[in-house]
Amino acid sequence: MSSIPDVGVILERVRFNADGLLPAVIQQYDTRDVLMLGYMDAEALRRTLTEGRVTFWSRSRQEYWRKGDTSGHAQFVKQAALDCDGDTLLVEVEQIGAACHTGDHSCFDADVLNPVQGASASA
Amino acid sequence: MSSIPDVGVILERVRFNADGLLPAVIQQYDTRDVLMLGYMDAEALRRTLTEGRVTFWSRSRQEYWRKGDTSGHAQFVKQAALDCDGDTLLVEVEQIGAACHTGDHSCFDADVLNPVQGASASA
Repeated sequence: MSSIPDVGVILERVRFNADGLLPAVIQQYDTRDVLMLGYMDAEALRRTLTEGRVTFWSRSRQEYWRKGDTSGHAQFVKQAALDCDGDTLLVEVEQIGAACHTGDHSCFDADVLNPVQGASASA
Repeated sequence: MSSIPDVGVILERVRFNADGLLPAVIQQYDTRDVLMLGYMDAEALRRTLTEGRVTFWSRSRQEYWRKGDTSGHAQFVKQAALDCDGDTLLVEVEQIGAACHTGDHSCFDADVLNPVQGASASA
């Protein structure tokens, strides 16, 4: 059960970057896989919070991009949160099909870097 | 068992933004909580991939910021990946203590937005 959030009040807390955009981390709500990072302007954020579907601002195409309208690979919104200084959004979604335009489940699947691992003293 | 990654080759694939920075999503490796988003320049990325500890570039202080050196709340690197177009990093870490400077476990704990939820036709 959710009422429509007061987007105007939320927007007062958001700190958009110099381009007027907010980075949005998209996470699958059940597996908790991080799927992708996209960008939202105020209108894309409003649509995402009120329509149940994730909408981005496409920097390359300079247009709104409701995820799945072309590909069918929609992102249905489950939850969202702003970070402590209001300059990043986390959206938990139900991802339909592949999140990545390459067909990969996640945009982070294909280029794993295998860094030097650290370990705490207790590990 | 990990060898030191060839950071020069990795850097050729990274697309830093206009400020020379790469957004880095930080995720706890076992619980899979998304903890925070930080920014790395090429040198912070090199340190993160080779030293086993996450290092950011602090945009507000304009200096390198090895997470935990002041707070004790270090992030030990477990895995890292670039996204499909090389403009976002995902780092899986072992977070010591709180990730957020407010003392919260995650920077996304305090400002939950309760958006309108969407649901797929199958749900």
